[in-house]
Amino acid sequence: MTHPALAAFEGRSGALVVGGIPVDRLAERVGATPFFAYDRAMLTDRVRLLRDTLPTAVSLSYAVKANPMPAVVQHLSGLVDAFDVASGLELRTALDTTMPADRVSFAGPGKSDAELSQAVAAGVTIEMESENEARRVLAAGNRLGIRPRVAIRVNPDFSVKGSGMRLGGGPQQFGIDAERVPALLKELADADLDLLGFHVFAGSQNLRAESICQAQRQTVELMLRLAEESPLPVRYLNLGGGFGIPYFEKDQPLDLAAVGANLATLVEGPIRSALPDARVVVELGRYLVGESGVYVTRVVDRKESRGRTYLVVDGGLHHQLAASGNFGQVIRRNYPIAVGNRWGAEAGEPVTVVGCLCTPLDLLGDNVALPRAEVGDLVVLFQAGAYGLTASPTAFLSHPAPAEVLV
Amino acid sequence: MTHPALAAFEGRSGALVVGGIPVDRLAERVGATPFFAYDRAMLTDRVRLLRDTLPTAVSLSYAVKANPMPAVVQHLSGLVDAFDVASGLELRTALDTTMPADRVSFAGPGKSDAELSQAVAAGVTIEMESENEARRVLAAGNRLGIRPRVAIRVNPDFSVKGSGMRLGGGPQQFGIDAERVPALLKELADADLDLLGFHVFAGSQNLRAESICQAQRQTVELMLRLAEESPLPVRYLNLGGGFGIPYFEKDQPLDLAAVGANLATLVEGPIRSALPDARVVVELGRYLVGESGVYVTRVVDRKESRGRTYLVVDGGLHHQLAASGNFGQVIRRNYPIAVGNRWGAEAGEPVTVVGCLCTPLDLLGDNVALPRAEVGDLVVLFQAGAYGLTASPTAFLSHPAPAEVLV
Repeated sequence: MTHPALAAFEGRSGALVVGGIPVDRLAERVGATPFFAYDRAMLTDRVRLLRDTLPTAVSLSYAVKANPMPAVVQHLSGLVDAFDVASGLELRTALDTTMPADRVSFAGPGKSDAELSQAVAAGVTIEMESENEARRVLAAGNRLGIRPRVAIRVNPDFSVKGSGMRLGGGPQQFGIDAERVPALLKELADADLDLLGFHVFAGSQNLRAESICQAQRQTVELMLRLAEESPLPVRYLNLGGGFGIPYFEKDQPLDLAAVGANLATLVEGPIRSALPDARVVVELGRYLVGESGVYVTRVVDRKESRGRTYLVVDGGLHHQLAASGNFGQVIRRNYPIAVGNRWGAEAGEPVTVVGCLCTPLDLLGDNVALPRAEVGDLVVLFQAGAYGLTASPTAFLSHPAPAEVLV
Repeated sequence: MTHPALAAFEGRSGALVVGGIPVDRLAERVGATPFFAYDRAMLTDRVRLLRDTLPTAVSLSYAVKANPMPAVVQHLSGLVDAFDVASGLELRTALDTTMPADRVSFAGPGKSDAELSQAVAAGVTIEMESENEARRVLAAGNRLGIRPRVAIRVNPDFSVKGSGMRLGGGPQQFGIDAERVPALLKELADADLDLLGFHVFAGSQNLRAESICQAQRQTVELMLRLAEESPLPVRYLNLGGGFGIPYFEKDQPLDLAAVGANLATLVEGPIRSALPDARVVVELGRYLVGESGVYVTRVVDRKESRGRTYLVVDGGLHHQLAASGNFGQVIRRNYPIAVGNRWGAEAGEPVTVVGCLCTPLDLLGDNVALPRAEVGDLVVLFQAGAYGLTASPTAFLSHPAPAEVLV
């Protein structure tokens, strides 16, 4: 059975095609391996799929942290409705596009005073993560003579099943506990703040549609309950995201239609009744960009050791840490992998693919079946469009940085 | 009980002292938090301890990958006998010191042709990781008209108990299987190579002296056996390292005296008998630099959530990934931690220390006991001198790079 990540790509004359270009030719064009390539048409298609499946009333926000490559952010700025950023540099990258500042949100538990000032000056929406941060935002507004745009990030009183990572429920570093939000709303009633609404982000990388639907129902119920306590009309409901993509062998793609139907019910039902003018936002990172990216490496050595065949490639965990199993995974499993210049050839040989680093952690494919690969061949890792290069220890062993291209 | 990592530092007027400077003053001198500081005197002391404990006949090599900061490498160049490098940039950093090229070794399973040429041109010792790499080294030598200096990295026919990471025994991407080395020695007998000897690196981060001693005995036994097959006199025996440092609560420091005594027995016994002129090398990274380093962060927020107190600091896993438990650890455990500007105060409050990143992975101290800390205080993580900054995803969420200082 072909992994959905591989099935999403085509081949031509025995080569994987990325962005319309055979990968061996693309490697020559880039000028060096290893590199990341993101397929522009796949990004466009993914946004179209979301537009076709989610209700039109839902704003689509891109979480820049998933892939902050400026060309990717520029491309998406013409396709999505909003950006979410997590640092001062991500904020600048977002503002370098034509995305209006009032469509940019800034979340994260440890914003510095400098970042808060940047955000206030830019006029983006600050998603406040604690009571103390609310006071710091107010102080920044006073200092700059600018009324800050803000929302309250709420730590919900429920948690989501099936998330790769849980960001809500129980004690959390993220957001303000739901039960404490009414008191903060009261405290901020007369403050010089433009309080727009609420943000809940309960979990990420979830492949179970029913879990996402349930979280969305609970999130809306919570937000509408809190809206009743708000001294100002609530105009912004950021429901978070958490849509997962399939990485491992038995992962099934998310049933997006089910999520879209559930959102339609919420938007046309309780939200329209209670807050007809509120902007409803779904915030996606990995789901928007993850599947469009490949990480392309070249075989430097092919060696045998005690009955096992190793392919040593010129990339490694310093560029694609998650594929080595060392980033948030409890059990190491293989990311989808192929030989890019032997596309469609029978995967007849069990091999172990390792990176060039001098550490046993640098394992990219553990006993995977590939077509017989030789030195010079291109080994490609899929699902590399999100949390790839920027989520990896690029300086580890001081190798050159890989290129990134949008094709 | 004070963790040995904290016991190694002193305080003055309630502040941790690093490199003779109270950490709050050091933070002002550096100009920004977070930062890494490495204590020059502790590096010197560590080399002295090794000189006093290991036999004088043993050469001490520093594995630059553990901490490639140029100032650290420069300082150590005057103290150790050799450097080991793992990439072209590490090679250049090593050669920027006064360390002679013939005291530099280059190991790693995925060396590029460009790196091999650099190494041949520089005249450093290439530790060959496969038969194919041996042929590539020969080709580089022919191309440049320079006779390469080489050693054979051997994948031993034993493995080491108690290593944090195993790099030898069974099938491996590292080295040439011991049983295949005699054939390679025969193949290279007339090659235009200066074949110096052997390298074995069986495992790393081992706190059990007896395991290290046993590995050294087996390594020497293997090397002397292989030396009998060598057409040229063997002049180089790199026994590897693997000396661990205590990270976690119940870790006991390595019994270095036992390792030193064992090495003396080997050097004065079988090695002197068989190969009196061979240079015996012990290669250490983490053990030389790990304990000299601290990672200093500042508290940005202090918040309560459902009965738990969180300290949100301005650093995080993007600088010190291992402390978050996401680099080669199966179970997350806390690294030693303290409030640097409340040194010696009673650690009376259980808190959770998190970084500034918008991910639940960014956990630096899970339910640790600290003196009550306020916004602006300095939270310090210890054992940060090795595999810290360069082994972390610095671009994750696009925050500024932290400073590194040697004091």
